Amino acid sequence: MDLDRDIALALRLADAAGAAIRPFFRSGVTADRKSDSSPVTLADRAAEEAMRALLSAEVPEDTVIGEEMGSTPGTSGRSWVLDPIDGTTGFLAGRPLFGTLIALVVEGFPVIGVIDQPILGERWVGAIGRPTTMNGHAVRTRACPVLSDAALATTGPHYFDDHDGAHFMSLAASTDHKRMVMGGDCYNYAMLASGFLDVVCEAGLKLHDWAALVPIVEGAGGTMADWNGEPLHAGSDGHVLALGDPARLEHVVEALACHH
Amino acid sequence: MDLDRDIALALRLADAAGAAIRPFFRSGVTADRKSDSSPVTLADRAAEEAMRALLSAEVPEDTVIGEEMGSTPGTSGRSWVLDPIDGTTGFLAGRPLFGTLIALVVEGFPVIGVIDQPILGERWVGAIGRPTTMNGHAVRTRACPVLSDAALATTGPHYFDDHDGAHFMSLAASTDHKRMVMGGDCYNYAMLASGFLDVVCEAGLKLHDWAALVPIVEGAGGTMADWNGEPLHAGSDGHVLALGDPARLEHVVEALACHH
Repeated sequence: MDLDRDIALALRLADAAGAAIRPFFRSGVTADRKSDSSPVTLADRAAEEAMRALLSAEVPEDTVIGEEMGSTPGTSGRSWVLDPIDGTTGFLAGRPLFGTLIALVVEGFPVIGVIDQPILGERWVGAIGRPTTMNGHAVRTRACPVLSDAALATTGPHYFDDHDGAHFMSLAASTDHKRMVMGGDCYNYAMLASGFLDVVCEAGLKLHDWAALVPIVEGAGGTMADWNGEPLHAGSDGHVLALGDPARLEHVVEALACHH
Repeated sequence: MDLDRDIALALRLADAAGAAIRPFFRSGVTADRKSDSSPVTLADRAAEEAMRALLSAEVPEDTVIGEEMGSTPGTSGRSWVLDPIDGTTGFLAGRPLFGTLIALVVEGFPVIGVIDQPILGERWVGAIGRPTTMNGHAVRTRACPVLSDAALATTGPHYFDDHDGAHFMSLAASTDHKRMVMGGDCYNYAMLASGFLDVVCEAGLKLHDWAALVPIVEGAGGTMADWNGEPLHAGSDGHVLALGDPARLEHVVEALACHH
């Protein structure tokens, strides 16, 4: 595979999605409900359509898996996994922290990931074997020598069921409670890659929510895993951890006190 | 009093704070702990010092009450209430949603309020009897005909004690759970003033956390109150509500099921 060519395509996908989304931000656009009752807007659909149009023109042999429009099978064994707006709820609340997530997944593993924030003009790009960049500059996670000093982030406790919530609270109690931040969706993983957060812990994520994050976090020196510390793969159960300092993984798993 | 002159001074305070804060954003600046163990940074202190220098030069007869450096008594009966960085935890996490809060309080009531986001260049200004503006353009809250459709925001449930948390959960259950957002600090009130959120509910706020918000929310058509629906005043107990649609106040108070 030609990684440079695929990265260039991923960036053009992000450009197209951003152009589709920007007119809708703070425009008064409202949400419909999907079958799982999560909100979806005209902006989500417009962005996914723009990306799908590019992919069908340029790489019709690749599978496309999008949050809003499902799967279009290909023949190449490669999949583009798209979340046009990760953080639609924050988008609707006027916050410029949502992101377009783009991943290229080959044989089940994400090899390219993009987080694009089209209002702020911030873009993180990760690719297997390469250093992660933010707007073209390499970024690194930070060391976290002691878990009790860690800054933990999650989008919201209301996304956990009672069981997961109890395990999350166990982890939260092992980190620095005063540095914990809520909200943020994919932006938390971008900030972890850039060295401003130590741990992100979430549940209920689908492939399109996390695939793009893996090359970004790992290319910045961090690691991602499920709540048992096992590597994420296409069949993972949606319990996701990101750590800036991989040396803390066993401590985080222990603090979650969780054996799914 | 000369409202135009005081508004102009408030804007210069915001300019000075922003200039002091920007070099520290995503700079790797770390936090000390105050006696209440909330984080404070060099950026908080530099911004408050810059504002205090202006105030002591221009209005030495006014009282200054700042989050970081306490109270400097004046003789005029007017108080400038300053929070150099509302949302220091988010600031440290690299999120551009924190804000500098500036209020002019006269006879116990906030008559001018500013929320300034110096990274995004976004500024909300409210003054008694005038329409609230964001970057010079008038903003309005939105109607919320039914509480069950309301988008609710709070900075994080970890800022509630168990008692308050139970009441908050009661309110959350009466709003649209799928539109609830966490995190955001003062930015939630700015988004409510601009018509993108319906209710903000928090506890433990001090005068410097909420004084600037009142003229902004009320000048945009909304209302603020304590959890019993009573107007906020300097002796309020830190339980704060903001509503975009004042007609929902009695329903929110009822949903909180709370009689402090």
